[in-house]
Amino acid sequence: MGTIGLAVIGAGYWGPNLVRNAQATPGLRLRYLCDLDADRARRVLGEYSTVAVSDSLDEVLADPSVDAVAIATPAATHLPVAMAALEAGKHVLVEKPLAATYAEGRQLVEAADRRGLTLMLDHTYCYTAAVQHLRDLVRGGGIGSVQYLDSVRINLGLVQPDVDVLWDLAPHDLSIFLSILPEGVQPIAVAAHGSDPIGAGRACVAHLTIELTGGAMAHVHVNWLSPTKVRTMIIGGSARTVVFDDLNPAQRVAIYDRGVDRKEAGEVGAGERAQTLISYRTGDMVAPALPEKEALRSVMAEFHASITESRPPLTDGRSGLQVLSILEAASASLAQGGAFLPILGGEFAASNTDSSTEGANA
Amino acid sequence: MGTIGLAVIGAGYWGPNLVRNAQATPGLRLRYLCDLDADRARRVLGEYSTVAVSDSLDEVLADPSVDAVAIATPAATHLPVAMAALEAGKHVLVEKPLAATYAEGRQLVEAADRRGLTLMLDHTYCYTAAVQHLRDLVRGGGIGSVQYLDSVRINLGLVQPDVDVLWDLAPHDLSIFLSILPEGVQPIAVAAHGSDPIGAGRACVAHLTIELTGGAMAHVHVNWLSPTKVRTMIIGGSARTVVFDDLNPAQRVAIYDRGVDRKEAGEVGAGERAQTLISYRTGDMVAPALPEKEALRSVMAEFHASITESRPPLTDGRSGLQVLSILEAASASLAQGGAFLPILGGEFAASNTDSSTEGANA
Amino acid sequence: MGTIGLAVIGAGYWGPNLVRNAQATPGLRLRYLCDLDADRARRVLGEYSTVAVSDSLDEVLADPSVDAVAIATPAATHLPVAMAALEAGKHVLVEKPLAATYAEGRQLVEAADRRGLTLMLDHTYCYTAAVQHLRDLVRGGGIGSVQYLDSVRINLGLVQPDVDVLWDLAPHDLSIFLSILPEGVQPIAVAAHGSDPIGAGRACVAHLTIELTGGAMAHVHVNWLSPTKVRTMIIGGSARTVVFDDLNPAQRVAIYDRGVDRKEAGEVGAGERAQTLISYRTGDMVAPALPEKEALRSVMAEFHASITESRPPLTDGRSGLQVLSILEAASASLAQGGAFLPILGGEFAASNTDSSTEGANA
Amino acid sequence: MGTIGLAVIGAGYWGPNLVRNAQATPGLRLRYLCDLDADRARRVLGEYSTVAVSDSLDEVLADPSVDAVAIATPAATHLPVAMAALEAGKHVLVEKPLAATYAEGRQLVEAADRRGLTLMLDHTYCYTAAVQHLRDLVRGGGIGSVQYLDSVRINLGLVQPDVDVLWDLAPHDLSIFLSILPEGVQPIAVAAHGSDPIGAGRACVAHLTIELTGGAMAHVHVNWLSPTKVRTMIIGGSARTVVFDDLNPAQRVAIYDRGVDRKEAGEVGAGERAQTLISYRTGDMVAPALPEKEALRSVMAEFHASITESRPPLTDGRSGLQVLSILEAASASLAQGGAFLPILGGEFAASNTDSSTEGANA
Repeated sequence: MGTIGLAVIGAGYWGPNLVRNAQATPGLRLRYLCDLDADRARRVLGEYSTVAVSDSLDEVLADPSVDAVAIATPAATHLPVAMAALEAGKHVLVEKPLAATYAEGRQLVEAADRRGLTLMLDHTYCYTAAVQHLRDLVRGGGIGSVQYLDSVRINLGLVQPDVDVLWDLAPHDLSIFLSILPEGVQPIAVAAHGSDPIGAGRACVAHLTIELTGGAMAHVHVNWLSPTKVRTMIIGGSARTVVFDDLNPAQRVAIYDRGVDRKEAGEVGAGERAQTLISYRTGDMVAPALPEKEALRSVMAEFHASITESRPPLTDGRSGLQVLSILEAASASLAQGGAFLPILGGEFAASNTDSSTEGANA
Repeated sequence: MGTIGLAVIGAGYWGPNLVRNAQATPGLRLRYLCDLDADRARRVLGEYSTVAVSDSLDEVLADPSVDAVAIATPAATHLPVAMAALEAGKHVLVEKPLAATYAEGRQLVEAADRRGLTLMLDHTYCYTAAVQHLRDLVRGGGIGSVQYLDSVRINLGLVQPDVDVLWDLAPHDLSIFLSILPEGVQPIAVAAHGSDPIGAGRACVAHLTIELTGGAMAHVHVNWLSPTKVRTMIIGGSARTVVFDDLNPAQRVAIYDRGVDRKEAGEVGAGERAQTLISYRTGDMVAPALPEKEALRSVMAEFHASITESRPPLTDGRSGLQVLSILEAASASLAQGGAFLPILGGEFAASNTDSSTEGANA
Repeated sequence: MGTIGLAVIGAGYWGPNLVRNAQATPGLRLRYLCDLDADRARRVLGEYSTVAVSDSLDEVLADPSVDAVAIATPAATHLPVAMAALEAGKHVLVEKPLAATYAEGRQLVEAADRRGLTLMLDHTYCYTAAVQHLRDLVRGGGIGSVQYLDSVRINLGLVQPDVDVLWDLAPHDLSIFLSILPEGVQPIAVAAHGSDPIGAGRACVAHLTIELTGGAMAHVHVNWLSPTKVRTMIIGGSARTVVFDDLNPAQRVAIYDRGVDRKEAGEVGAGERAQTLISYRTGDMVAPALPEKEALRSVMAEFHASITESRPPLTDGRSGLQVLSILEAASASLAQGGAFLPILGGEFAASNTDSSTEGANA
Repeated sequence: MGTIGLAVIGAGYWGPNLVRNAQATPGLRLRYLCDLDADRARRVLGEYSTVAVSDSLDEVLADPSVDAVAIATPAATHLPVAMAALEAGKHVLVEKPLAATYAEGRQLVEAADRRGLTLMLDHTYCYTAAVQHLRDLVRGGGIGSVQYLDSVRINLGLVQPDVDVLWDLAPHDLSIFLSILPEGVQPIAVAAHGSDPIGAGRACVAHLTIELTGGAMAHVHVNWLSPTKVRTMIIGGSARTVVFDDLNPAQRVAIYDRGVDRKEAGEVGAGERAQTLISYRTGDMVAPALPEKEALRSVMAEFHASITESRPPLTDGRSGLQVLSILEAASASLAQGGAFLPILGGEFAASNTDSSTEGANA
């Protein structure tokens, strides 16, 4: 298959990044930047561009030179916009979250499945060199079994008019978790606490506690009110522990040969006390060299490849759906004062083929 | 009153620090280091010391030259050891936590009250220059109203044989919270999540979510398994936000004039949208110069002063009791899967005088 | 005056940045990207651009719609390229250094003067929010008198085929120094040490020691071989000291009220010892909030403004000449084993008007 | 041999550290703390010590139970105090620098040699786990050949009444250099620049440039006026480069597999340009786990071991002499405006036996 004609829908915060990276991706041909506000689209393109501007989604979708769309509109509009694109036979790349609700997201996944079209989530972080290193390391057994995850994503952020801090920021952490967790280790229940100390009408600070298959715990702290910016994730393993600090370009990933071990009963004499069952490792740290690359460039390349190779992308609709199922359970927990609630969606994935289940974890 | 004769009870992990600082404090005269294992006590004192060693608490308490004791024995022994000291008419400084349970701690507070003796908690952090600066700043209104607190205390720690990570580490965070929160802002409910991924038999990773009077939320993350050490506390306020990083000696306290404000309705025109009610401050940061001093020296000085001035110390028994009430509620929440539980102890404080209530907040 | 027609000359390392920022600058109209290798120029512009490509400088200079050129070619070509542009009546923005030698640079300054054209140096750092804050602070007397400067610029860098590390990196430090030093404080002599431990044929590590009017000392450490990246400048003052860490986006500028003072004789009693003449300040640190902006955008705006307002730009030809005079003296010192050598160029500046001298400091 | 009786001479800044560590060292028996000001000595020992105080060096040296002395008096007094001790047959540990001049230091080395007594320098840094790791790594060939060294030691420091910043701080850097440099790589010439911007009467900021055998360059920046503290050393090698950051306890030593290589002529085709001779490595970083220990404890243990084993200590008199020879040449260079001057002392070492030459490098 030759060049993929692309339209970017939405010229707001994220759209310009899609435009820039689409233009730099071999095999993609950017045909339109589409926004209800055509002037805004024109300003994004600048005065030197040959790309067409449109304020009509219908016009764009009717153009046979458009094979695919990249959607960067508010989440509430993802269902109608993406559905229109799928119904017009276009492949879809959609900004996170997949949709405003799990039910809406499921409609999109089913529609894409029915038509055999690519539905891909722009979970940008999953395409960074750091997360890809983490994924290979963790899935490859390099840290042993996963013992806990802890992610902190706080900074002075824009209080969103439509979603709370969980829906705004946690999709990043959740999509990274899903991307790196070994097969068979899945979120099964979630509890959420949040607060709105400025009276914004929605949670501005929130904590997610997630129970994983096998009993390990993951925690996410998101906060729009912090004066300092923190982007740190710890993945504790039985053999090694990794720290991912996205704000430390000289050392984004650090792999520590440090931890606490419990010896098996057979290894200690009968007379020794329980305390002797614990031992400590304090070994070296290795910070692997990572290539410098813009993650969104890899997103575009994967979108292109998944279309031309007719295969699910790394971050397909099911991974977007899984993020939605966690967010919905978290919102329900938040409303109920922090109780643990099961994460739905398993039955949906289960009703599909093995390969699609595999895709859900990807 | 002249010199206070002191005995240190317990020559384990913390005892040597008490010995060293007691010896350097004017007005204190160290008479004994007492430990069931006299050899261990001798090793702590070294070969050049004139301080007496004893393996008998009774002997020490019977000595009229001993006016006060500093207890650094396991928490489970605090009740009998401290009670014996109080009954012998000795003032008591006790390592955190006050006792193994709230009920035990309450016995000690009541016994000290009855006899008019000082009962002081060695909440060492409350005597650091950083926390004292925070206390003056927050209580003095320097950050406006408190919006949230967030404390992270993680490192590769000793898995304790008798207590979980909450009881081991969170007393530090909780005593700092109690020390700096303005009067009238108190913990009223707590939810706890924890996990034991290494099979140690007790939680090694835990998260506390605390609801405060007025609706603000505090969060504590404690973890024995982290390969990296973090000791960071954020206190978000309506006017300023403070970051306390205990591992950054060059900049332990940073005060940010940054935040998110909500304008009052009267300030915005009727036609403006809700979003315009939000505004952002991105002002300067100030890192105050703090004196270098050893906090435990100040603990000793306060113990001496509270005895000679017959006044409650900054960290009196009630503050220790309040920490216990939070820990007990947290443990119950942990056992019940993370439900919010009320924090007991208010009725006890309420049954006392105003001054004692004040003391409970100190 | 209306829009300024611009051509960018050179599509190598820096040219793409000039192209991008020129396109985003109101009042500038990018007409050409010119490179001997037209394909390279086409790749820089991408497939969506309306900007013309040319491989002929003559063609570009002959086009009356081109009012100005921005030159990003190797330093050795700056004289012919910039001279041709000036002779064609075009204003010139030139990448640092101004030219390959002081003599060549002087020809360009004189040619621009004769024709009344703008000759501006792209000393990008001088247009960052951090350096502009430093400039206002230091020139405004905010740190008292300047006591010393220290700049470290090290990282794993590209070993340049034509220039040594001094000529490659030190122009950044020197142009910042010239930009922030108060009038009347000027470099007057320089000593340089360097080494070439990898046998590259030119210095890869170098140290510059610069004597300033009044006796203060400035030092620059540049290094292509360091595995870690450091970009730190300290400006010590009698009243305050500033640290500029370009790699710490959360705290690029930190102003310390710390230092060592010498009391004047009158302030101490006759009987006091000399040592008592020294006192220490250990006050607070303030990290000012700085706007986030791309410096090269401001370079373009200043280029445009200096042309339309017929005034010298902040970093005019004379500031470029002053950098060259320091580099030439440093190279001579390097060749002579590190002797202090006077910095030439003063007589040239002196032969001009007051306003041009002022410009030389700018 | 049994226990070594020790006297500490000098109860000022450093003496208390010697007292504390001597008391904790097996095989050492602290007999005296000696100071002209007996009250100061008493205050250092505190009210609980059995160690004797003396204000008479003669008394201490006359006591046959004293086998060795540790001297922490001002540098100007090292010659008479240490010489008296040696003449009384006592082994000597002396704070850096060995003496006030090279000539004085040489007298001490010769006197110790004649009597077969240990003369050891308290170059504390050489006994840290970090420097010992560096030493093993560098001498063991782990970084290839040494290409450059760079050390920065700056902070708001006490302006010394008797010595300038070079003599105060640079002995640390120089002793580390001598400790880790491979045999055969020695300082052979030095140039120094300094300034006294506060009018203290001596250099408060200084830069040393040192030429090593084989052409590599070492640089030392020392500064009493910096508001921030930096203690960073880079040791560039042909195979790896090490960064030693003494203020980063979590990562004091970092070994980078990064650098610039020059291919040998045979490796590149005849037609390739010179530029292709350069290649870059950007590999992983490893931060080795280092034991936590107090370096001064190891100093004491080495002092004890060198006496009981009748062998030269790691930091013997010759290493102290070599530091003095560099400092003297640096002071002369400073006085002469920064000219490179040869480092004396080689002939002295040469006139001795092979083993003593080896000792000079230790």
